[in-house]
Amino acid sequence: MAQKIPVGILGATGMVGQQYISLLNDHPWFEVRFAAASPRSAGKKYAEATAGRWQLAKTYAPDVGSIIVEDANDVSRAVAAFKKGECSFVFSALEMGKDETRTLEEQYAAAGIPVISNASAHRWTPDVPVLIAEINPEHTDIIPVQKKSRGWDRGFIAVKPNCSIQSYMKPLHALAQAGFPAQRLIVTTMQAVSGAGYPGVPSLDMLDNVVPYIGGEEEKSEREPLKIFGFIDNDVFKNAEFPKISACCNRVPVTDGHIACVSLEFMDKKPSLDEIKKIWAAYKGVPQEAGLPFAPKQPIIYREEDNRPQPRKDRDADKAMAVVIGRLRPCNVFDVRFTALSHNTVRGAAGGGILNAELLKYKGFLG
Amino acid sequence: MAQKIPVGILGATGMVGQQYISLLNDHPWFEVRFAAASPRSAGKKYAEATAGRWQLAKTYAPDVGSIIVEDANDVSRAVAAFKKGECSFVFSALEMGKDETRTLEEQYAAAGIPVISNASAHRWTPDVPVLIAEINPEHTDIIPVQKKSRGWDRGFIAVKPNCSIQSYMKPLHALAQAGFPAQRLIVTTMQAVSGAGYPGVPSLDMLDNVVPYIGGEEEKSEREPLKIFGFIDNDVFKNAEFPKISACCNRVPVTDGHIACVSLEFMDKKPSLDEIKKIWAAYKGVPQEAGLPFAPKQPIIYREEDNRPQPRKDRDADKAMAVVIGRLRPCNVFDVRFTALSHNTVRGAAGGGILNAELLKYKGFLG
Amino acid sequence: MAQKIPVGILGATGMVGQQYISLLNDHPWFEVRFAAASPRSAGKKYAEATAGRWQLAKTYAPDVGSIIVEDANDVSRAVAAFKKGECSFVFSALEMGKDETRTLEEQYAAAGIPVISNASAHRWTPDVPVLIAEINPEHTDIIPVQKKSRGWDRGFIAVKPNCSIQSYMKPLHALAQAGFPAQRLIVTTMQAVSGAGYPGVPSLDMLDNVVPYIGGEEEKSEREPLKIFGFIDNDVFKNAEFPKISACCNRVPVTDGHIACVSLEFMDKKPSLDEIKKIWAAYKGVPQEAGLPFAPKQPIIYREEDNRPQPRKDRDADKAMAVVIGRLRPCNVFDVRFTALSHNTVRGAAGGGILNAELLKYKGFLG
Amino acid sequence: MAQKIPVGILGATGMVGQQYISLLNDHPWFEVRFAAASPRSAGKKYAEATAGRWQLAKTYAPDVGSIIVEDANDVSRAVAAFKKGECSFVFSALEMGKDETRTLEEQYAAAGIPVISNASAHRWTPDVPVLIAEINPEHTDIIPVQKKSRGWDRGFIAVKPNCSIQSYMKPLHALAQAGFPAQRLIVTTMQAVSGAGYPGVPSLDMLDNVVPYIGGEEEKSEREPLKIFGFIDNDVFKNAEFPKISACCNRVPVTDGHIACVSLEFMDKKPSLDEIKKIWAAYKGVPQEAGLPFAPKQPIIYREEDNRPQPRKDRDADKAMAVVIGRLRPCNVFDVRFTALSHNTVRGAAGGGILNAELLKYKGFLG
Repeated sequence: MAQKIPVGILGATGMVGQQYISLLNDHPWFEVRFAAASPRSAGKKYAEATAGRWQLAKTYAPDVGSIIVEDANDVSRAVAAFKKGECSFVFSALEMGKDETRTLEEQYAAAGIPVISNASAHRWTPDVPVLIAEINPEHTDIIPVQKKSRGWDRGFIAVKPNCSIQSYMKPLHALAQAGFPAQRLIVTTMQAVSGAGYPGVPSLDMLDNVVPYIGGEEEKSEREPLKIFGFIDNDVFKNAEFPKISACCNRVPVTDGHIACVSLEFMDKKPSLDEIKKIWAAYKGVPQEAGLPFAPKQPIIYREEDNRPQPRKDRDADKAMAVVIGRLRPCNVFDVRFTALSHNTVRGAAGGGILNAELLKYKGFLG
Repeated sequence: MAQKIPVGILGATGMVGQQYISLLNDHPWFEVRFAAASPRSAGKKYAEATAGRWQLAKTYAPDVGSIIVEDANDVSRAVAAFKKGECSFVFSALEMGKDETRTLEEQYAAAGIPVISNASAHRWTPDVPVLIAEINPEHTDIIPVQKKSRGWDRGFIAVKPNCSIQSYMKPLHALAQAGFPAQRLIVTTMQAVSGAGYPGVPSLDMLDNVVPYIGGEEEKSEREPLKIFGFIDNDVFKNAEFPKISACCNRVPVTDGHIACVSLEFMDKKPSLDEIKKIWAAYKGVPQEAGLPFAPKQPIIYREEDNRPQPRKDRDADKAMAVVIGRLRPCNVFDVRFTALSHNTVRGAAGGGILNAELLKYKGFLG
Repeated sequence: MAQKIPVGILGATGMVGQQYISLLNDHPWFEVRFAAASPRSAGKKYAEATAGRWQLAKTYAPDVGSIIVEDANDVSRAVAAFKKGECSFVFSALEMGKDETRTLEEQYAAAGIPVISNASAHRWTPDVPVLIAEINPEHTDIIPVQKKSRGWDRGFIAVKPNCSIQSYMKPLHALAQAGFPAQRLIVTTMQAVSGAGYPGVPSLDMLDNVVPYIGGEEEKSEREPLKIFGFIDNDVFKNAEFPKISACCNRVPVTDGHIACVSLEFMDKKPSLDEIKKIWAAYKGVPQEAGLPFAPKQPIIYREEDNRPQPRKDRDADKAMAVVIGRLRPCNVFDVRFTALSHNTVRGAAGGGILNAELLKYKGFLG
Repeated sequence: MAQKIPVGILGATGMVGQQYISLLNDHPWFEVRFAAASPRSAGKKYAEATAGRWQLAKTYAPDVGSIIVEDANDVSRAVAAFKKGECSFVFSALEMGKDETRTLEEQYAAAGIPVISNASAHRWTPDVPVLIAEINPEHTDIIPVQKKSRGWDRGFIAVKPNCSIQSYMKPLHALAQAGFPAQRLIVTTMQAVSGAGYPGVPSLDMLDNVVPYIGGEEEKSEREPLKIFGFIDNDVFKNAEFPKISACCNRVPVTDGHIACVSLEFMDKKPSLDEIKKIWAAYKGVPQEAGLPFAPKQPIIYREEDNRPQPRKDRDADKAMAVVIGRLRPCNVFDVRFTALSHNTVRGAAGGGILNAELLKYKGFLG
């Protein structure tokens, strides 16, 4: 690729925005040239706007540090950047209210700027795909429908699902593809604090403590999989009916990496534990076949040790883009139990968004 | 009570032993007069033997600090103490191997010293009761059978179950008593490090981390409830068949307090959420009726806030002897979900052992 | 005491306010009858205003839960309560800006309501005493001067110093009283997150991390001791010139309990380590002599173990009102080194404020 | 370099041994071909010997996983490996007692295997250099003396200092080189748990807690700098007399990264804060000039933000080989204060050892 595609980040100074900036450093296709955030940061250099608030061990490129942050509410700034060849599309990591996010993302799309979003605002918008690149790449077929009905020319909106479900969606998909769909799932998660952004969860809640509740998370965890496992029929999404999921979401004193403890009941046939491990080991999708830059080589890594996966040791597997699973065993009530881990701000947020953008580019939507 | 009953602690210097010592400070019925531990501690004053290793914020009484620690392997020391009126029975918090514990506890009982144990060694011994004082006080009926068949005169063995199940056994019992027995249960626990004793879990495993495995814990969690919910038929225990339990046990960075996230399927009738709360609020057992000193006034406390129970804030409820529950809600797969908390080294260990001793005293088994 | 003195709490819903409420539960002299906080809480019952935000393991009395919270900005509410016999004086745990706090506390005093404050606003006001009850009880002599010059009748203001210095001020005072004043002090603190209130320090800053900075804390730690060790001359405070203090303040992942590592250079004579320990063991002040309810029996507890004091194990010593010291040893550069610990929200905040009120009551200023 | 030098690791399965294995993955000069550990691990594949005990997020190379671990006590195994061209020298990360380590390391050297050691056993052996590659590379001049007096042919011993001093030695050296030697230093450290190996510090000591003591650490911190800042006179080390150091070492709940809070008094001339920053920014040594692979490009990184350095965000700076400093400011008692951070198991252990080996190779001591 002769020249990199210039991209923008909405919500560039927040936790997920920082991850985008950090992960896109040296990306082979994309280059951050535009950054927008709240009015408070607008007008400052990116380095200045994040001074004392940068949360990651890896820092940003010097070029990015000197980008002047724009006001994300002012779509005309992105349009101007687009015209100067500095913003071909945007990653949205907006942290404002749901209604404001929904409206603002639509304004960007209407103005001709494609929006690849982490926000939850458009996940239930009927003509917006919720993409996990390995699972439902064909859901991009809705984008022409979206553009047409909205009267949008170049812009469109594609989103990714909630970070809490990332660790078990690919394992479930692998099993379903192999002829073993899940019927019911009881899931308990132990989620990292970075999922709540910065400042996010107070330290008084996370020292010698666990908080057994995350607002809105359980509903998302139970519903979003049904859209992702659904299909497009006559230009309309039909949600899957299964698996039925019961989710209990907890916040634990971990910086990054969400764990899910899953009890699974299969629909019909029940594979052996060995079959399941083979299915997971062999699992690949379009990102792997197309060699997309952010695709993990092996999307599902199984560890045989009793005491894995662990957030600190496993979250960074394959550039933090792989799911790591362990403890596959029979369930005393359903069919099998296992424990799965995914890096919530990489695979579950910015990294997942980048992989979606790569998929969309690969399929010609960002051309 | 004119004079307190002198008691001994086996494993007095370990984590649970320390809790016994600390909790029995000022007990109205019992008084620690005898302490035994590993040969390494034998011959030292208790204060000396625990110097630099005392784990609790509350300290021991000065009298206890000057007790000379005996070698727990030498049963004759306890017998001598018994004869001097310094050890009427012992609490066992032994931390040695299962087989050695089993043998040693039997030696104490055979020598005429009743053993109220926290150890897991005798939980599946057919003639040993596994007591939760509110749930199965009638299981003490096995003690005369035990004494007779063993040819023991004064001594006997009674044990308590694993700490991981304490938070949901009373809630289940309350529901079963009210006509709503559970059929199936999928449980995921987040357990405190004090459950593994000291030194126990390395800090490298508990900083920015969760360990998704505790050896042997899931098997205990799935099986022990069936003995506790069972009954004695013709001098023999019959285990209950239900509830079927699937347990996934995790270690989290919390000092004290085990949490369980429970999905529950009722056997037949399904109470409303309000009914369940009323049943829990009204729940009482023999300990409450008899006014036993360590009985929590209200064994099950329900909190209406979304974000409770939390270990740091709720584990000490009612002298750390109550179970605290929150988040009762419909389950998308089974009938209801809730989250329950119990202090693992108090209610789940030493405090539970003391309450069992109080029950046994109340029922006339301790002279 | 036939009837308890009714007291009010300003900033009652915050972290320190909650500690006041909790600690005054069952206080023999004082009874909380009035609570004021931000307009957001005004009009709600105290239980309601703190639901989901209550931070302590110990809860409030039922009576307090049903107090209607007033707007702290509206002094007339306290005056009305005073007239109804429900607010004889107030503890100020206000968390607003320094200038607003200064003004508001003066308005309360001017309206006839004595203010015993934790806030830093008035620590450098020339006619306001900064009290540590064991060290400078005679500084209350400035109160008549204050009242007179301000034209206040019943009201006055007395404050306590910053929580970061509590652990070493009494040890220094004990040594100075015994003829061994300190000349220079190099102090590094490791401070608990509760010192920053709630939500306070973000958990992302406190998991697997230390923050080597607390805004304004070092200046307070270096200057406030000079006022406390000063004296009143001709109705005016004269600050002490020594000890010169260099403070480096760090935030560490601990809920409660500030540690200070102190290197000390004596002015002239240098006591032996044994002499120092004897001086600390014998140290008493007016609170001990007068038997004030919140006075620790032994204000300075020395522990001989190498690895003490530790926040989790030592912060609650003597109702969390004692200072716990360990590791006294020669310093390779100055004379001696030691490590000291004090509970920052009890002795260093609400408990210290209550002890100051007891001192003021004992001396007739609240009568 | 046509072919890599084969190296061995003694203590290969421990915490520091794992870091060696991990860091030497893809090293341009060295290649791990030999691994030795305790008899318990001997005979197992490296992957097997560390299964369930591997502590790092980064894993080992597959080739290393299949190395058969030898018994470190049996020097003949290394000699055999040397003859087969599989072990040119060894990195010692032995975790046995000091006397045994001293003897064993000498046996390796006597057998012709150079030993680059992290262990403390030989730091005070008169003819063994304690190297920090940027500071005292000329101390390698003692090696010929060592070899000659011991009658060793090919083997020798070189060691590195304790991890606790790594963060401030280079800053002090930079200042001394620029004409501003330090006279006195009062240092308080907050040290990570990985410094104690695995299992190391119990989690009960590190949850909601700080331990104000690390056995032996303060003595090492006060004495080792004097050898490093010393010089060789007539084939004998002369220790420096300054700076006098007083160290107070604490263990805090951090996985990796030791912090030191330093108060510094200069010998004579006192540079301005700006001069100091310039001196640090310009600081380079032989490793930088020679372009050694593990040399950080900028050995001392200064951060202007108030709240840095922080372990989680700064320990990995420049491959975890740089020192990160912040908070340079006047000291109220000495001349200046600053806070410094170094990654204890990389720069302070395995990475520092590798850099020492690179220096020795560069200077011709490794064949």
